[in-house]
Amino acid sequence: MDTKRIVVIGGSAAGPKAASRARRMDEHAQITLIQKSAELSMASCGYPYYVGGFFDDRDQLLCSPAGVVRDSRFFWNAKRIDTKVRTEVTKVDPIAKEVFFKNLDTGETGSLPYDKLVIATGATPRKPPVPGIELDGITTLQSMQDADFLRKISDDGVIKKAVVIGGGLIGIETCEALHLAGIDITLVEMLPQLLTFLDMQMAMLVEGYVRTKANVILENGVAAFLGENGKLTGVKLQNGTEIPCQLAVVAIGVIPNVGLARSMGITIGERGGIVVNKYMQTNLEDVYAVGDCVETNNLITGVQVHAPFGDLANLQGRVAGENIICGNVKEFPGTIQTGICKVFDYGVGSTGLSEQNAQRNNITNYETTYNASLDKPGFMQGRLLVTKLLADKTSRKILGAQVLGPGDVGKQIAIWAMAIQNNMTVDQMCNADLPYAPPFSLAIDHSIASAHVMQNKLDGLMDGINAFELKELLKKEEKMLLLDVRNPDEFEAMRLGIGEVLIPLGQLRARLNELPKDKDTLIVTWCKISLRGYEAALILKSYGYTNVKVLEGGLMAWPFGRER
Amino acid sequence: MDTKRIVVIGGSAAGPKAASRARRMDEHAQITLIQKSAELSMASCGYPYYVGGFFDDRDQLLCSPAGVVRDSRFFWNAKRIDTKVRTEVTKVDPIAKEVFFKNLDTGETGSLPYDKLVIATGATPRKPPVPGIELDGITTLQSMQDADFLRKISDDGVIKKAVVIGGGLIGIETCEALHLAGIDITLVEMLPQLLTFLDMQMAMLVEGYVRTKANVILENGVAAFLGENGKLTGVKLQNGTEIPCQLAVVAIGVIPNVGLARSMGITIGERGGIVVNKYMQTNLEDVYAVGDCVETNNLITGVQVHAPFGDLANLQGRVAGENIICGNVKEFPGTIQTGICKVFDYGVGSTGLSEQNAQRNNITNYETTYNASLDKPGFMQGRLLVTKLLADKTSRKILGAQVLGPGDVGKQIAIWAMAIQNNMTVDQMCNADLPYAPPFSLAIDHSIASAHVMQNKLDGLMDGINAFELKELLKKEEKMLLLDVRNPDEFEAMRLGIGEVLIPLGQLRARLNELPKDKDTLIVTWCKISLRGYEAALILKSYGYTNVKVLEGGLMAWPFGRER
Repeated sequence: MDTKRIVVIGGSAAGPKAASRARRMDEHAQITLIQKSAELSMASCGYPYYVGGFFDDRDQLLCSPAGVVRDSRFFWNAKRIDTKVRTEVTKVDPIAKEVFFKNLDTGETGSLPYDKLVIATGATPRKPPVPGIELDGITTLQSMQDADFLRKISDDGVIKKAVVIGGGLIGIETCEALHLAGIDITLVEMLPQLLTFLDMQMAMLVEGYVRTKANVILENGVAAFLGENGKLTGVKLQNGTEIPCQLAVVAIGVIPNVGLARSMGITIGERGGIVVNKYMQTNLEDVYAVGDCVETNNLITGVQVHAPFGDLANLQGRVAGENIICGNVKEFPGTIQTGICKVFDYGVGSTGLSEQNAQRNNITNYETTYNASLDKPGFMQGRLLVTKLLADKTSRKILGAQVLGPGDVGKQIAIWAMAIQNNMTVDQMCNADLPYAPPFSLAIDHSIASAHVMQNKLDGLMDGINAFELKELLKKEEKMLLLDVRNPDEFEAMRLGIGEVLIPLGQLRARLNELPKDKDTLIVTWCKISLRGYEAALILKSYGYTNVKVLEGGLMAWPFGRER
Repeated sequence: MDTKRIVVIGGSAAGPKAASRARRMDEHAQITLIQKSAELSMASCGYPYYVGGFFDDRDQLLCSPAGVVRDSRFFWNAKRIDTKVRTEVTKVDPIAKEVFFKNLDTGETGSLPYDKLVIATGATPRKPPVPGIELDGITTLQSMQDADFLRKISDDGVIKKAVVIGGGLIGIETCEALHLAGIDITLVEMLPQLLTFLDMQMAMLVEGYVRTKANVILENGVAAFLGENGKLTGVKLQNGTEIPCQLAVVAIGVIPNVGLARSMGITIGERGGIVVNKYMQTNLEDVYAVGDCVETNNLITGVQVHAPFGDLANLQGRVAGENIICGNVKEFPGTIQTGICKVFDYGVGSTGLSEQNAQRNNITNYETTYNASLDKPGFMQGRLLVTKLLADKTSRKILGAQVLGPGDVGKQIAIWAMAIQNNMTVDQMCNADLPYAPPFSLAIDHSIASAHVMQNKLDGLMDGINAFELKELLKKEEKMLLLDVRNPDEFEAMRLGIGEVLIPLGQLRARLNELPKDKDTLIVTWCKISLRGYEAALILKSYGYTNVKVLEGGLMAWPFGRER
């Protein structure tokens, strides 16, 4: 057998993974990796934490688990992978199967033949096409250079005011990093909500929390960057507001880098990424593509999406690396778009479909529910979690989950990701056998309790109303009874103050005479998390009230202001 | 419809849950709960943490999430459940459908008719039938009284030496609690290993860690408790050793309380628990049973097991509570025996089949593998996890997982529990879409990496050898080359010292001439976690070595002593 010649374009995550896996499959293949930047295998998702001072040694972003910097020498010695850094691929001839490249420092050019080519060209941050974008003090957080730049600002401590443009994952992570450096942050987002993978109510709960750390401006974009002597002095928003600042970080999403692929005649999809099959193969038989430059199959909707996540990049790289050596033996099935981020001391995550995403895909036969509880017992310092679930009304399959709060969000999202990938029904989830001991979870884990709430709704035991729906009724001045069923001390300490009356659950049966005579009056019940609210609703229904709804998630899922 | 009369016997976990769920299904049912102890709805799994001083307010063990003690008044006011505490059921007439009871304080007797009965009589700790068992200073940790007794000892600080008998979950949790009180502990276990839900190698890793906190004596039992003036002064073991101590905690398992059920003609299973169907119904149509007194279907083997876990008790209670009101509408499918415990600063958990358990069930067509890695990046203070996986060789379904270490074991076990309940294959798990961000996981989560290792083994890419197998070969003085492929500084800091040579992975290709001429010689490779060990093995095979094995899990899964 002739020696296989493999060329990989791109050296961040997916590329090195594909090259390394290929090497494991074939010690004798000739593998070359071409990388535009100076670094290899960067842990780019770690940049915000380096900037934020979670650690000081920059090399940790470039290290193998054994603590060795993954440079060209490492790749050659440990993996016999020839890496060409600071090298740009200028052209690929897919007929002759040849890659042309140029060293960005020396200008030296060359070419390499390939039997199989892997494109892992990543994505580039979008920048708003507005005046002043070239000023000093405007950056993204996508490269080691960006991370170095921001870390220096953080260490110098000179800059006091910054604007972060974009309320997505990277924007919010950047907020945290700069906040930790003592910088006063204004976060500007074009859309009416932060973190668009969340539905509005969940996003508002995050927003309320972020506002305790930073200024948040929604539904506004950058009209211009203002400057003096080439240096940023402020940001002018589309509504005319000017925010003085010495630093602006742009994080309004990324665009797949597909220029090279397009020039080769490779099919580009509607979401702007390279189209690949389940083997990570493009329409050119010998060309594979992986990572942030490709589109991926959404396993729930069947629609192609752009999902630039570091974990998927690695998994795709592994599949492609094996297939280029062994033929198409391994498949990458797709994504359910699982994502998570740290928002100061909150975790915020989502997996499967959000309600907004379901609607965009014309999926309407769903039920939603909110649940709030601790992640473990109060006596073990349990911390709050709020979950929104989405399930199909007919098949009762779980379609999506969003979780946020100071509690253990990582575990919750992992559980739901597994449930959704396995097409689990709500009813199956109701009896899941999960690990329980007080240091780790409640006896009924928050995820299972969330499934219980959804089952109660699907079974018709619980009629829910969410905060938005209730707010709408309040606006319309609908005639209704608002009923908080907590204890008086809880009511004193915290309450919505939207006209509710307090009847503690334990007194409800004895105080039915205080309720409206007209048993068709709408009654909305709640407590802190709406477990007692649910019990109250069941009691009222059993006494003939026909229109009783539970405010889902109770006070803990209320995204608007409270009286107390 | 006539008012339904429900009687529930037992008020710890499953009983109250069944009663509460029944109430939610039917506001007008007459529900009575009879409880032998003085307390209701105790968070009994929290006792070790109360004893260990994780919290001081005893009421927290008895509280609702809203902080209200769940006493008889609470149950009546909030749930209209009539509770009779300190009351023992003396007899049930299943023909007349009547329960006879007696108040343990007043001696008052009475009886109640029922339409549906729920038995939730729990389990009783085993005690060794040896001389001295009645001495003062010997306790279990199963009741509030036990917890009070041990907490007082912990607070008093007088007792300096204790023996814990039984190296299971409760035994080890008790060790930790008493250790935190500054008490010198000796843990005595009859079997050759701690925590029998683990396989030996995993148990030895736990044991090595526990030995840094307590004395551990295996394969030994209690022959007698020694005392003076009715007070414990020591424990005499079966091998004659005497251990002076003022306190002994017995935690050698529990026996289902089935006397009452048996007297009613209810079928008792081979594992000593009440036999129920998937509706939690006994062989008597109107009698259901839930919690620690029942046997449960193991979903993998189909065999009935006794699985006295607090989470299952709650889920069973919920199912029974609904079925006694609505007819048999809900099912409890069974268990995969998921369990977890905190062992000082380690988490230790298991789900599905262990290798030992597979063998006991005549399941032999399996592959096992070990994997060690951090739970999140080193720069985010990632902590070690060691996983042992079990998968079917033919179907490639995941059968079991054991995880331990200072890392986030709870999430790992939850992921595997979901995978196993959903009959996932190793290959499906290899591309799982789990939440990734550096504060929460590695880019390739430890669970997925473990699946990758298993896939490599199943695909024949990796020949593994575990620590026990290697130890066996060492004993036989098998001719082989032992090859550590880490860096010299790592080797200096820590090494097995079993005759290995060091050739760092990066130098391996250049130093092949140092390897045995006979290419059929057994070569065993490893590194810290055996990722580099695996790469080394692939290199050696590609150069014609026919018998290369990777020491699975590397140094991190080595359960024996190390030279350094």
